[in-house]
Amino acid sequence: MSLLEILDYAGVAVFAATGALAASRKQLDLIGFLFLASLTGIGGGSLRDVVLGRVPVFWVVNPTYILVCVAIGVLVFFTAHLVESRYRLLIWLDAVGLSAYCVMGAAKGLAATGSATVAIVTGVLTATGGGILRDVVASEPSVLLRPEIYVTAAVAGSACFVVAHAAGLPLFASSATGALAAFAVRGGALRYGWTIRSYKPRPGRHPNDVIR
Amino acid sequence: MSLLEILDYAGVAVFAATGALAASRKQLDLIGFLFLASLTGIGGGSLRDVVLGRVPVFWVVNPTYILVCVAIGVLVFFTAHLVESRYRLLIWLDAVGLSAYCVMGAAKGLAATGSATVAIVTGVLTATGGGILRDVVASEPSVLLRPEIYVTAAVAGSACFVVAHAAGLPLFASSATGALAAFAVRGGALRYGWTIRSYKPRPGRHPNDVIR
Amino acid sequence: MSLLEILDYAGVAVFAATGALAASRKQLDLIGFLFLASLTGIGGGSLRDVVLGRVPVFWVVNPTYILVCVAIGVLVFFTAHLVESRYRLLIWLDAVGLSAYCVMGAAKGLAATGSATVAIVTGVLTATGGGILRDVVASEPSVLLRPEIYVTAAVAGSACFVVAHAAGLPLFASSATGALAAFAVRGGALRYGWTIRSYKPRPGRHPNDVIR
Repeated sequence: MSLLEILDYAGVAVFAATGALAASRKQLDLIGFLFLASLTGIGGGSLRDVVLGRVPVFWVVNPTYILVCVAIGVLVFFTAHLVESRYRLLIWLDAVGLSAYCVMGAAKGLAATGSATVAIVTGVLTATGGGILRDVVASEPSVLLRPEIYVTAAVAGSACFVVAHAAGLPLFASSATGALAAFAVRGGALRYGWTIRSYKPRPGRHPNDVIR
Repeated sequence: MSLLEILDYAGVAVFAATGALAASRKQLDLIGFLFLASLTGIGGGSLRDVVLGRVPVFWVVNPTYILVCVAIGVLVFFTAHLVESRYRLLIWLDAVGLSAYCVMGAAKGLAATGSATVAIVTGVLTATGGGILRDVVASEPSVLLRPEIYVTAAVAGSACFVVAHAAGLPLFASSATGALAAFAVRGGALRYGWTIRSYKPRPGRHPNDVIR
Repeated sequence: MSLLEILDYAGVAVFAATGALAASRKQLDLIGFLFLASLTGIGGGSLRDVVLGRVPVFWVVNPTYILVCVAIGVLVFFTAHLVESRYRLLIWLDAVGLSAYCVMGAAKGLAATGSATVAIVTGVLTATGGGILRDVVASEPSVLLRPEIYVTAAVAGSACFVVAHAAGLPLFASSATGALAAFAVRGGALRYGWTIRSYKPRPGRHPNDVIR
């Protein structure tokens, strides 16, 4: 398997694990674990394939990805109680998945269009899509809205991949550069609580207090 | 009309009714009923068509499906107050739609790829997609996260269809087998409160209590 | 640029601004602004393109749309604190975007299929899709569920466009007719609190009070 294929299966597997951990937090049954594992594992890549016009999407062409999600879902079902903090594990695995998937998304966007802008957008879409679907469907508080840096890590990873690729680095090196950059940013944010201050923060009011 | 076509229109119609009932619970206006009826009625099938690469999706090719949703939306708008418990009706119609749609989704996934794995996934996606969209857009508590068996019924129906089809049963018999299996599982869960205990249940804590 | 192109960029830009304003209400960082601006700006059009089978979607073919979202996101990041009520601005810009986008969606649906039914559905999908994605991902109260007329404005604009087009008006005139009709309905609803009474309103109960 090439590095890109390894990153692809790794992204699917760790995102599937975060979906299964969300299922565990909601005390779902085994099939609920497999459902959320699959949705999270293949969600971001499916969105990427659809907007790029690569249909049928990757897991329809190669159902092995589904079997990976199922295997991970079963594994988490029988072991989640051994983990002291499932949310902490979820959020760190999500960081690993984000790092693998932003490079995968950027590589496919770049291959399909040659546009650096599209590559960064498909990188971010692939890296964040599965987690957004997981949080929405499992009614988890959105990881996007937490104060620690999140989308920025996906942008950094995608952009580093695109720059390294444009600089002529081989695919292995540019992929590794992008994935490590994304993980450094997101991991640092989780470990040290990095945030980027918004320019003039001000909390939103409830619509009913604003209109009429 | 073939049995598959009847199942298809039936799935659209009963899911449309659940969307309109959700609109009634939120006290929306007539167009709000039609919107949620259409979204729920054609949502799951649209997701199926897109991942399988069958675009334009079915209701663009044949707008009769939209007219079915509109007719059902109008009907529910003028009759929902006659129903003692709209949520109970919603949840039972959702069970009928789930049963029809998991077979439809599995049949189309099997026809497109020949893979039993893909067929079960597209069966579940088609059967649950409309309800997920309805619950998210209408801010209803997610039917997926309730304790009674839900996704398992869609998996059971899709798998029974695939097995019956592989065993050489005619399309009519294998479709009926799948739909009845799904309805038996989901109906039993609703009637008798069937649940599958999770392995080691433990409720999730709030992210703020876990990270930092 | 033709009127349709102007409507298209205008729709993307004002929806992007509403996404950025939602990011401001949630006190996100700059990249969070750009993310929600892009999601909201290109979300509805992406859904339209996918169901119509027009893939790769429009912003993959022409990444200028992304750059518009980024520019608007940066602008809102540095100026949102100057606005007294960001939600009021969000909701009015959303009305402008809805008006531009329902015509765009109806025009593309009509061009692709010739069906007035499909045109109205793609008009509504395009006009409401970005706002739904924004509200779901940013955890904003859904604009769809507020009492003031919303979806009805998108239906009115799409239908007026289709009728004007069928009556033989040139594209400029039928587009302007549709957009003005939508804005008149939605603007009136916002300004004067127009609502359409539902037939027999009755609030929904919680599922736990209904089943078992």
